[in-house]
Amino acid sequence: MHINEFQEMMRRLYFHRDSERGVEKTFEWLVEEVAELGEALKTSNRKALENEFADVIAWLASLANITNVDLEEAALGKYENKCPKCKNAPCQCPF
Amino acid sequence: MHINEFQEMMRRLYFHRDSERGVEKTFEWLVEEVAELGEALKTSNRKALENEFADVIAWLASLANITNVDLEEAALGKYENKCPKCKNAPCQCPF
Repeated sequence: MHINEFQEMMRRLYFHRDSERGVEKTFEWLVEEVAELGEALKTSNRKALENEFADVIAWLASLANITNVDLEEAALGKYENKCPKCKNAPCQCPF
Repeated sequence: MHINEFQEMMRRLYFHRDSERGVEKTFEWLVEEVAELGEALKTSNRKALENEFADVIAWLASLANITNVDLEEAALGKYENKCPKCKNAPCQCPF
């Protein structure tokens, strides 16, 4: 599924909730989901880990929806086929 | 671009760096990028905002690459066309 199709799916499922909650609280939820991903990384529970990756990208899409950002356009605008800093693929930035 | 194609592009660009840096430090970078997204949300700079959304999904893909998680499979496994909690579309979970 394309990144923007996923974002549109999240819009269909959650925009009514996301817009009511607002940007600040939705960002707080994203931060919380990232923290849960951090906890899952410390375990060997693959299903829990996948679950937390899913939540982070879902909340990122929700936040993009209520701030009118096209996540796919933003991602490809910066990263398409080269490192945005050194302009190489693979990246050859100095450490 | 499909979510998994984006993840593969991030692998081509950054896997050598991501795998050397390791899971813990890559997660720390993700947290830092989320914090920068939070700062950008407080401004009216659209380009900076798009830039930070791009960075968060890029670092999430990097983290998925070094933990062998398929981000698209994880996302669709949990969220495809219905809320995973109430099973409705749109979501009808109680507040």
